[in-house]
Amino acid sequence: MKFTVNRTAFLKSLSDVQRAISTKTTIPILTGLKLKLEARGLTLTGSDADISIETFIAADDDNAELQIEQPGQIVLAARIFSEIVKKLPEKTMTFEVTENYQTEITSGSASFTIKGLDADNYPRLPEIDAEEKLEFKGDLLKQLIGQTVIAVSTQESRPILTGIHLVIKEGELLAVATDSHRLSQRKIALPAAQNANYDIIIPGRSLNELAKMIPEEADKISLRISENQVLFDLGKTTFYSRLLEGNYPDTERLIPKTAETSIEFNAADFLAAIERASLLSHEGQNNVVKLVLETAVQKATIYGNSPEVGNVEEELHFQNLTGNDIEISFNPDYMKDALRSFGQTTVTVAFTLPLRPFTLVPSEDHEHFVQLITPVRTF
Amino acid sequence: MKFTVNRTAFLKSLSDVQRAISTKTTIPILTGLKLKLEARGLTLTGSDADISIETFIAADDDNAELQIEQPGQIVLAARIFSEIVKKLPEKTMTFEVTENYQTEITSGSASFTIKGLDADNYPRLPEIDAEEKLEFKGDLLKQLIGQTVIAVSTQESRPILTGIHLVIKEGELLAVATDSHRLSQRKIALPAAQNANYDIIIPGRSLNELAKMIPEEADKISLRISENQVLFDLGKTTFYSRLLEGNYPDTERLIPKTAETSIEFNAADFLAAIERASLLSHEGQNNVVKLVLETAVQKATIYGNSPEVGNVEEELHFQNLTGNDIEISFNPDYMKDALRSFGQTTVTVAFTLPLRPFTLVPSEDHEHFVQLITPVRTF
Repeated sequence: MKFTVNRTAFLKSLSDVQRAISTKTTIPILTGLKLKLEARGLTLTGSDADISIETFIAADDDNAELQIEQPGQIVLAARIFSEIVKKLPEKTMTFEVTENYQTEITSGSASFTIKGLDADNYPRLPEIDAEEKLEFKGDLLKQLIGQTVIAVSTQESRPILTGIHLVIKEGELLAVATDSHRLSQRKIALPAAQNANYDIIIPGRSLNELAKMIPEEADKISLRISENQVLFDLGKTTFYSRLLEGNYPDTERLIPKTAETSIEFNAADFLAAIERASLLSHEGQNNVVKLVLETAVQKATIYGNSPEVGNVEEELHFQNLTGNDIEISFNPDYMKDALRSFGQTTVTVAFTLPLRPFTLVPSEDHEHFVQLITPVRTF
Repeated sequence: MKFTVNRTAFLKSLSDVQRAISTKTTIPILTGLKLKLEARGLTLTGSDADISIETFIAADDDNAELQIEQPGQIVLAARIFSEIVKKLPEKTMTFEVTENYQTEITSGSASFTIKGLDADNYPRLPEIDAEEKLEFKGDLLKQLIGQTVIAVSTQESRPILTGIHLVIKEGELLAVATDSHRLSQRKIALPAAQNANYDIIIPGRSLNELAKMIPEEADKISLRISENQVLFDLGKTTFYSRLLEGNYPDTERLIPKTAETSIEFNAADFLAAIERASLLSHEGQNNVVKLVLETAVQKATIYGNSPEVGNVEEELHFQNLTGNDIEISFNPDYMKDALRSFGQTTVTVAFTLPLRPFTLVPSEDHEHFVQLITPVRTF
């Protein structure tokens, strides 16, 4: 196996694949990166058994300047190999596997020799036999992931809640995540997939890594779904994730249909006020802030408190406060995550009772995105 | 005590003083920041007993927009106070101490109340009775600190080596630091201080913090030295440090006067090659690289090796290799620190014997700056 390649182009592919490679794996060969050189080009593969990423540098890719001298394959320790490639002195590098999987990497007058492993021992990537392809716009998929992944549970006690629940039917995708204290739900239209019908749970961590790989100017991304795996095709790169097994809880009934009190905030202004209030709540044992809405006097006030340090109160700017007066306490960190996911927009916050979950939706679109937060009992 | 101030200007002063405030102190009041308001302006003080920093916002400073309503003084928990000031919504903030040291901080519609402490219990800053002032150009002092502090010991086993030794005499300042494996020495002229005569050891950590406070466009910085304290005057800010007590070892005799082999490298190129060689030496148990100089064939080669991972060799670009052939092994991290302190210049490296310390000096000035590294025995 021998080739020469442009170092910048190679590094880009290498860093994509490295997302899947963990240093903490029980399968030693998975700390490695697989390189496979064929006449058509070079394939790089990384995997941690949950996520696998494969990327391809085509022989005719002008930027990559790939010169293939001898096909072959090898597995190299990913971390040290990537550090070496980063530090090489010249624009191109030459890569050659000699006997006993010894691998020589040269660039200018620098020459590294590192030990490789037999690529035949590297696990095979899962086979995805599904024919059906669902297509997404890259930026929309990235937004959907960013908006729902915040509510994914980080506790392993209920593994199913560490995933995002995707239901695809009737030309629509519904994505839901909840850690049982808060919930995030996003809907998008999939007009080209009227007949598609899926109900799957993808690990939140997988989708998080996938989102990082979607470039800003991403074109279409296609998705194929099989029994226990999904495959996202990003063009030169393919991303595999295993699915979580089990039944996701019924979340539809959790979202209140009516409201007793409703108010509108500029998301960024409200976020800044919550951040101030949480400065003191973070100091105490109970990380809770209190929101008081008084409709008769048209007043909204946020309170934060730490018995050891002090307290804060702030009158909030708002629009359209209607309904019953309410006093409600909640974890400000959940509110911060929720508000950040809205960006620069106006949000409508709707309450029923002080101990019942409340919702946030974009004021101009109550249909496609909702965040739900469960309050905290403080008495 | 009551005042209004521009938040940006106040934050700048606050962050300077915070450098001295540690959260890990055995004296609880030192986790606080002292504020003292007089007719002439506001003084902020922070201290960790080793370092004390005092900064002044003058009543007539236009940027600070200080409006003094009621003089007084208070001590506030530094970390939370600074977080509050950072997050306040408006351009200005109002600060008022009410009864029982309760302190109200308001900005726009946000209002914080935090508990303060009696400023009478805050320790007094050391008195510096020395009349003599030594003056430095800010950028030169910053450079001198940066070049010597790298060799300061981080081990508490020989406390004296955690400091930088400063000897001022005959219109010259000599600064030396060594951790007994390497040494860095810098000389600067102090033409205005022909009669000054001092021999002191300032903790490396103090000088490191001081260097961070010296702005790029710093004017003169003056230094006053007393029995066990020094005071640097940076204009609005004064910086106090205690001195280390004891006798610094005689380092003059450590620096070889002659060379058997000498070579010149571009510091940046040599640094890049050392970084490559150290990639593999860092993987192994012995963090050592080997430099081989062959004068007859005019060849310089660096080698790095890890029995587990592999090895690297690189032929180096150089100028003016003269003297005996030599093969020498050293810790690449010491070499990296040394080379970084030279910046973009040519360095002359001079060797005597494989187990004797070698030196690096700027090729165009052998007098004022020298780095010394002790090799490692590898056989």
